[in-house]
Amino acid sequence: MREIVVFSGSAHPALAAQICDQLGVPLSQTEIKRFSNDCLQAQLLANCRQRDVYIVQPLVPPTQEHLMELLLMIDAARGASAAQITAVIPHYAYARSDKKDASRISLGGRLVADLISTAGAHRVLTMNLHAPQVHGFFSVPVDHLTALGVLADHFRGTDLSNSVVVSPDLGNAKEATQFSRLLGLPVAAGSKQRKSDDKVVIDSIVGDVRGKRAIVLDDEIATGGSIVELLDRLADFGVTEAAVACTHGLFSGNAVERLRGHPMVSQIVTTDTVPAPGRWPELQVRTVSGLFAEAIKRIHAGESVSILFDGVDPTHAPPQGSLFDRVGG
Amino acid sequence: MREIVVFSGSAHPALAAQICDQLGVPLSQTEIKRFSNDCLQAQLLANCRQRDVYIVQPLVPPTQEHLMELLLMIDAARGASAAQITAVIPHYAYARSDKKDASRISLGGRLVADLISTAGAHRVLTMNLHAPQVHGFFSVPVDHLTALGVLADHFRGTDLSNSVVVSPDLGNAKEATQFSRLLGLPVAAGSKQRKSDDKVVIDSIVGDVRGKRAIVLDDEIATGGSIVELLDRLADFGVTEAAVACTHGLFSGNAVERLRGHPMVSQIVTTDTVPAPGRWPELQVRTVSGLFAEAIKRIHAGESVSILFDGVDPTHAPPQGSLFDRVGG
Amino acid sequence: MREIVVFSGSAHPALAAQICDQLGVPLSQTEIKRFSNDCLQAQLLANCRQRDVYIVQPLVPPTQEHLMELLLMIDAARGASAAQITAVIPHYAYARSDKKDASRISLGGRLVADLISTAGAHRVLTMNLHAPQVHGFFSVPVDHLTALGVLADHFRGTDLSNSVVVSPDLGNAKEATQFSRLLGLPVAAGSKQRKSDDKVVIDSIVGDVRGKRAIVLDDEIATGGSIVELLDRLADFGVTEAAVACTHGLFSGNAVERLRGHPMVSQIVTTDTVPAPGRWPELQVRTVSGLFAEAIKRIHAGESVSILFDGVDPTHAPPQGSLFDRVGG
Amino acid sequence: MREIVVFSGSAHPALAAQICDQLGVPLSQTEIKRFSNDCLQAQLLANCRQRDVYIVQPLVPPTQEHLMELLLMIDAARGASAAQITAVIPHYAYARSDKKDASRISLGGRLVADLISTAGAHRVLTMNLHAPQVHGFFSVPVDHLTALGVLADHFRGTDLSNSVVVSPDLGNAKEATQFSRLLGLPVAAGSKQRKSDDKVVIDSIVGDVRGKRAIVLDDEIATGGSIVELLDRLADFGVTEAAVACTHGLFSGNAVERLRGHPMVSQIVTTDTVPAPGRWPELQVRTVSGLFAEAIKRIHAGESVSILFDGVDPTHAPPQGSLFDRVGG
Amino acid sequence: MREIVVFSGSAHPALAAQICDQLGVPLSQTEIKRFSNDCLQAQLLANCRQRDVYIVQPLVPPTQEHLMELLLMIDAARGASAAQITAVIPHYAYARSDKKDASRISLGGRLVADLISTAGAHRVLTMNLHAPQVHGFFSVPVDHLTALGVLADHFRGTDLSNSVVVSPDLGNAKEATQFSRLLGLPVAAGSKQRKSDDKVVIDSIVGDVRGKRAIVLDDEIATGGSIVELLDRLADFGVTEAAVACTHGLFSGNAVERLRGHPMVSQIVTTDTVPAPGRWPELQVRTVSGLFAEAIKRIHAGESVSILFDGVDPTHAPPQGSLFDRVGG
Amino acid sequence: MREIVVFSGSAHPALAAQICDQLGVPLSQTEIKRFSNDCLQAQLLANCRQRDVYIVQPLVPPTQEHLMELLLMIDAARGASAAQITAVIPHYAYARSDKKDASRISLGGRLVADLISTAGAHRVLTMNLHAPQVHGFFSVPVDHLTALGVLADHFRGTDLSNSVVVSPDLGNAKEATQFSRLLGLPVAAGSKQRKSDDKVVIDSIVGDVRGKRAIVLDDEIATGGSIVELLDRLADFGVTEAAVACTHGLFSGNAVERLRGHPMVSQIVTTDTVPAPGRWPELQVRTVSGLFAEAIKRIHAGESVSILFDGVDPTHAPPQGSLFDRVGG
Repeated sequence: MREIVVFSGSAHPALAAQICDQLGVPLSQTEIKRFSNDCLQAQLLANCRQRDVYIVQPLVPPTQEHLMELLLMIDAARGASAAQITAVIPHYAYARSDKKDASRISLGGRLVADLISTAGAHRVLTMNLHAPQVHGFFSVPVDHLTALGVLADHFRGTDLSNSVVVSPDLGNAKEATQFSRLLGLPVAAGSKQRKSDDKVVIDSIVGDVRGKRAIVLDDEIATGGSIVELLDRLADFGVTEAAVACTHGLFSGNAVERLRGHPMVSQIVTTDTVPAPGRWPELQVRTVSGLFAEAIKRIHAGESVSILFDGVDPTHAPPQGSLFDRVGG
Repeated sequence: MREIVVFSGSAHPALAAQICDQLGVPLSQTEIKRFSNDCLQAQLLANCRQRDVYIVQPLVPPTQEHLMELLLMIDAARGASAAQITAVIPHYAYARSDKKDASRISLGGRLVADLISTAGAHRVLTMNLHAPQVHGFFSVPVDHLTALGVLADHFRGTDLSNSVVVSPDLGNAKEATQFSRLLGLPVAAGSKQRKSDDKVVIDSIVGDVRGKRAIVLDDEIATGGSIVELLDRLADFGVTEAAVACTHGLFSGNAVERLRGHPMVSQIVTTDTVPAPGRWPELQVRTVSGLFAEAIKRIHAGESVSILFDGVDPTHAPPQGSLFDRVGG
Repeated sequence: MREIVVFSGSAHPALAAQICDQLGVPLSQTEIKRFSNDCLQAQLLANCRQRDVYIVQPLVPPTQEHLMELLLMIDAARGASAAQITAVIPHYAYARSDKKDASRISLGGRLVADLISTAGAHRVLTMNLHAPQVHGFFSVPVDHLTALGVLADHFRGTDLSNSVVVSPDLGNAKEATQFSRLLGLPVAAGSKQRKSDDKVVIDSIVGDVRGKRAIVLDDEIATGGSIVELLDRLADFGVTEAAVACTHGLFSGNAVERLRGHPMVSQIVTTDTVPAPGRWPELQVRTVSGLFAEAIKRIHAGESVSILFDGVDPTHAPPQGSLFDRVGG
Repeated sequence: MREIVVFSGSAHPALAAQICDQLGVPLSQTEIKRFSNDCLQAQLLANCRQRDVYIVQPLVPPTQEHLMELLLMIDAARGASAAQITAVIPHYAYARSDKKDASRISLGGRLVADLISTAGAHRVLTMNLHAPQVHGFFSVPVDHLTALGVLADHFRGTDLSNSVVVSPDLGNAKEATQFSRLLGLPVAAGSKQRKSDDKVVIDSIVGDVRGKRAIVLDDEIATGGSIVELLDRLADFGVTEAAVACTHGLFSGNAVERLRGHPMVSQIVTTDTVPAPGRWPELQVRTVSGLFAEAIKRIHAGESVSILFDGVDPTHAPPQGSLFDRVGG
Repeated sequence: MREIVVFSGSAHPALAAQICDQLGVPLSQTEIKRFSNDCLQAQLLANCRQRDVYIVQPLVPPTQEHLMELLLMIDAARGASAAQITAVIPHYAYARSDKKDASRISLGGRLVADLISTAGAHRVLTMNLHAPQVHGFFSVPVDHLTALGVLADHFRGTDLSNSVVVSPDLGNAKEATQFSRLLGLPVAAGSKQRKSDDKVVIDSIVGDVRGKRAIVLDDEIATGGSIVELLDRLADFGVTEAAVACTHGLFSGNAVERLRGHPMVSQIVTTDTVPAPGRWPELQVRTVSGLFAEAIKRIHAGESVSILFDGVDPTHAPPQGSLFDRVGG
Repeated sequence: MREIVVFSGSAHPALAAQICDQLGVPLSQTEIKRFSNDCLQAQLLANCRQRDVYIVQPLVPPTQEHLMELLLMIDAARGASAAQITAVIPHYAYARSDKKDASRISLGGRLVADLISTAGAHRVLTMNLHAPQVHGFFSVPVDHLTALGVLADHFRGTDLSNSVVVSPDLGNAKEATQFSRLLGLPVAAGSKQRKSDDKVVIDSIVGDVRGKRAIVLDDEIATGGSIVELLDRLADFGVTEAAVACTHGLFSGNAVERLRGHPMVSQIVTTDTVPAPGRWPELQVRTVSGLFAEAIKRIHAGESVSILFDGVDPTHAPPQGSLFDRVGG
């Protein structure tokens, strides 16, 4: 069997190191240099020839820098005759740019998927894409992990009485619906209204939330603006307190300030697909490094990855969606 | 300016003829032959050389036959040196297959998009894809029209008091949300529960519907099974009557029987992206041929297509989604 | 060595099962589902990751359905990270569409070859293509088996005195020529004349057939129309009786009726590249499953496939054509 | 309308000049230089930007030099921003390499077609490919002209009584069959027998030729070896004299000596797709420059090329083959 | 003729505006938005359909941001059905990464060229690539302008007596050699020596410089480190003063401080391919906007661009290199 | 581990045989046939299926023949299901065509790289490309060996006092600079001046050479014209004698006559990347077969190739260039 070689870009070396620990392989070194004209160059400091190469890099800010690092590392591995290159992108941030909702806009989610193929990746390993359809943007095989099981686990031991799962957006509530099934809870969602050309507000909550405790679920929290708006609406509609859960906890801008002291918030839980913000001891971070290590082990050994999430253990993953859920009439 | 040539496969020649009428060009003839071994062959009976060729073919049952016809016609146009080939697919049925919700399943929505490119299409013109992300499955430019304006127009003259727009699926309610905004109505959605491995039922309605009149909106109705189930749940939850609206009204299997006499149904309205079922005089069909003809005229003349839907006339289209609706924070 | 995994579409599972028997591997299960809008979806029910995957599917009627099944299965295997995907297409029916003999027609043989590559196949294993040049339509390696040895075997034990091999078409008599050499017999051919725009008749027989017994060889028999016409002409030209041999015996339409009781026919022999028609006990079917199993075994083990046909045993294969047969001057 | 620019490689500038004469455009100059290490370089000496560029180069000996010239010229035109590049290849010699009739051999006909696309050609204009299937080796559109009409014209005025068209090879007699229909004559063919591993001889003539005058038709004559062999067999079988006709008259090696004084030969007629041999006054050369000029004019103007051969004038072209000639059963 | 539409990214809108002024077309607006997760999105605010689109963006710091903007704008133009997209990249900074001079390093110059093609550009217009071979990294046509004529013009009026052109690097002195020919001056070059693994110093000057006035020519000056080192060596070797000329004057880091007060420097001249540093009144900036405008005009009109530099006016361009300069033997 | 199979084209079988000797594998046979119309066909006479195939072919005159042989052999290996195909091209002659130094010229170095990919090569193994940037013309991984260590070794034992390394061209002196560092010598270079449109002469020598002994280094010597010119100039400038070293010693045309008796020449040393000229006993040829064999062994075994040249033994290779040699400012 070919050897595994794992490299990390500069986006999240701690996660790469943890994955390597669990795989029992060393994290191979990378040297990213910056030319004096600000161009980047990547050098991989371990032999890649005929190896099974994994490059770990979530697309976190500064996103363009990290994306370019990833592309250059893939290019270097290809030029160095790697047998197989897997881009391990725990947070594929460009998935947010997944549709053309205005004239002549770029479709970054598809473009970046194509760039990754062009650079030479043979496979992508990622987690909780913003929409499940983004999977189809890639022309290479994608192994798509989910953190919903890990997040559900977090809540399972606790008191869930009188609780409701809330999605910030009625138009995109698939994950919240799956999550609510995992916990056996009802679901509700914010409904948005356009006020003016560039202002959208949550003006109502669809579903019964009055007097309940909310578990707000989102895939990504960046500046936290829409979460805070949702929390305010939930307060208006009689929710008593809210836990916030998300897979990708970027907490950029003044998100920490906004959320840390928010009166509605009982707790915030996220995972380590992205580096945690520095100064926030109460933030609860569940690791997904084990899931990534297990997936890499299985990819390398030619074992099924889907079995990880295939109804075997409902405490760690959502039940498999039926094939024909919502098909046709 | 290059000449326009329009061909139709055998899926929906009536729509193609109507589009041609409005364009003021003749519908050019196509000959589809079937070899004795059941293989198909397409011959285009008008000169394509250096022309701007449009091939009209919704993917309606028998879907595989119509898809193969479309691919062969594109191939014939390419081999005949067409300058530009636009696949006009009013109903892109494979959009339903837009995600990997089980292990080792095909992703038909992306595959068929790739097949269409391989055959030689330079552009796709389509309407109301099942999910907006499906746009990103295509590597060629897509002009994506919407019938929501046409359907909203249908309801605008009528009494909308005490009404609510209802989406069959909470996890995928974006279109219903947009539609409700066009009509100034609130929105609700069915919430599904898995009963067993292959059985999913609508077990509750999220949002306030009691005592109201529903306008159920779906993008496609095929056998009508899930619509009927929704209607039953709406009755349970106190809805008094329901209008049903959809863009792609296939009404296959025994959909006509199921829906025509259903006690909850006040009216059913659809469009002519697909051929209407034969024996159903009460069915209200609004034509979208004008939208397609206008789009083709603009594509050909190098004018903006998006302007058709760009907030100009809110009675014919949904307001443009803000760029940053549901982004990040 | 990587594991072999064999799947079958719904075109000819019996042949796939026989091949698996001879390979000593189980036939892995596939689930083909039909959405209510008539789109298909394939799910492969065995792990494909890093496996050597073979998908068995002759393109028999309903041809478009079976082709789409094949494409979706290949797509599913690719998405599931198969190491190598071989499309095993015992009858590649679209090979009939191998030239542009009219203006602006599709070239299905090449198009479908490209679709198969687009879906993700790395290699094709097939038998008796309608013309040997069709091999060159594929951009992936093709292993092209022949059934001529199997058919020749059938006749070798029998009385061949006073016999002649007859090709239905003088313009395409390469296979009949090879077959006649295998049996040490002379060869003749029908010569066609166009009567009107869409009517071609066999108006003469080139070569000496009077008073002889014919062995008519064709690669594929579908409705049997041209074979019956040939038999009539042979009778006119003094042939006393005719055996009919073909690789791909579809016998569609009313072929069984036409051929079963035909006064000239002494026997009909075919192979199992396609399913045999139901009600025809006298039809002689020779299996080619052994050839396919042996080829798969060799592909998998990295052994030569061509050696199977390389002059080793002239009773099972035609002698290798010289490299410069018919080249230049 | 874009301007036409025509270039010629060094293979056959006289034909290019004649085509330009008939088009009424100048032949633009090309400079082919040879580096001291024997590499070639092409420079196009007229502006190509946004032009419709035609590069005339039959693949005649030295074939590799001429092929490389063609590829470099295409590359230069592409780099110079030509709008559209048509490779005009009156004799596509690599069509001879159209099938895999031995293990592990190259398939030059397909490979060279792919090289031409890689270099940047958008279309190919060619004449009488060795087999019609070779058309399908190209991924770009091919306009495929025929010289059969021109050759038939040559014979129409003459005494055709008691004549028969003869194909050298029974396995590949499609062109001879078409030609015989154009002249209203019967057809016969040589049948080959392998004597040893690398020796194939014509051992019999299929069809009635005794006492007749033959018109031998081949697509290409190079060294003339197999034609001479056929003439000898025809003499043995009682043919009294033979005219020889071919599209591509290379007459390489000692073909001129072999054929010029052959006792059976009444006349030899060919076309100018390739340069004529120097010292052979009796050779009859019919020009096809008019057909190429007309095709280029139509390609440029966006008019149908197929109409040139579409039954309009049966004296200049073979009747269109029916779509279903030899299809299925 | 199709309309021209010009867009600018945020790298250098002043240059884009000047080019537009000279073209007599308005600069169309672009909206670059940043998602809260730091992903970028480009929206083109003018109709692109069937237009000839030019996107102006030199790759200046922050280089990754500007590169991604460029890719997204190209993607948006492609999705908006632009007829032809030209990436106008006055400074292609990644050309510095043009060879593999260490194990397993990325080759950014080629990778970024491929990314630009993947995004959808049909042509690149650029100036003074770091090495002329970088042209060959692009698979699309490149129009490669030179600023040497503009820089030579700057010096032509002045006293050039006792002057010598100096290249910082003997290994890469092609541009300096061309420049010296334009001015009729001799040439010299720095020779580098490796001191330790990551330290390279200029240890000698090859060529006669003692007592002379130097004109140092480099294609790009970023932090100015190697220029300062060269100036120091030139002082050691008896050079009396030095003018510094470069095409791409980034002057990043503390380049301004280093160079502005350097005792050897008589003057510094550069062009506006990149924005000039803010606080440096003595810096002489020659505009190349006229060259770009002229090139765009010619590309659009289908006129020769090379003629701009083709010996017509030796005061504005280097003489055309002979084809066989340095070839072979 | 997969088996190695090595084939040789007809360009340099002796080198291939030596490489095989050192690898301990037999040289597998190839049959190159020439059709009577001058087309080539390659047949590989050993099983390639799932093998690691190496095809050895330097591009020496007749260059086009050898290039086409190489492409056909790659095509044959691909069609025969080779697992991995490495084109071993010890002399990639088309690297000379590496830039567009005139209008509308071909860029052979990039074109041929693309042709090699199109034919199906997965990797290229080559030596001393004319410019290091040519590496970036290939879209497949390139292992780029250097003969500088071997040539330096040749000189190390000898008296190097009072010597200087001389590059024929100041504009392209990178290799000479590296070589001079290996030997601890100073470096000089010829400076060229254009006399007329197609005449370039070396008119001066940059650097101090008077009274010294020169070691002239070039990558390739073909007709020897520019070397002889350089020798004459060196004599004019007071050089006393010159040794000549080159990697690729083609010595075509009358190079042997020119150089063998030249009064300045003390010795000429080259390598066996190309066949040595027949009649020149004094020519010193150092073999690089060991380097190629070692590289193939390492490629096959998945070991680092770069380590061969990575500073380990400075007597056999140039020191690794620093990553940032000549980068930016």
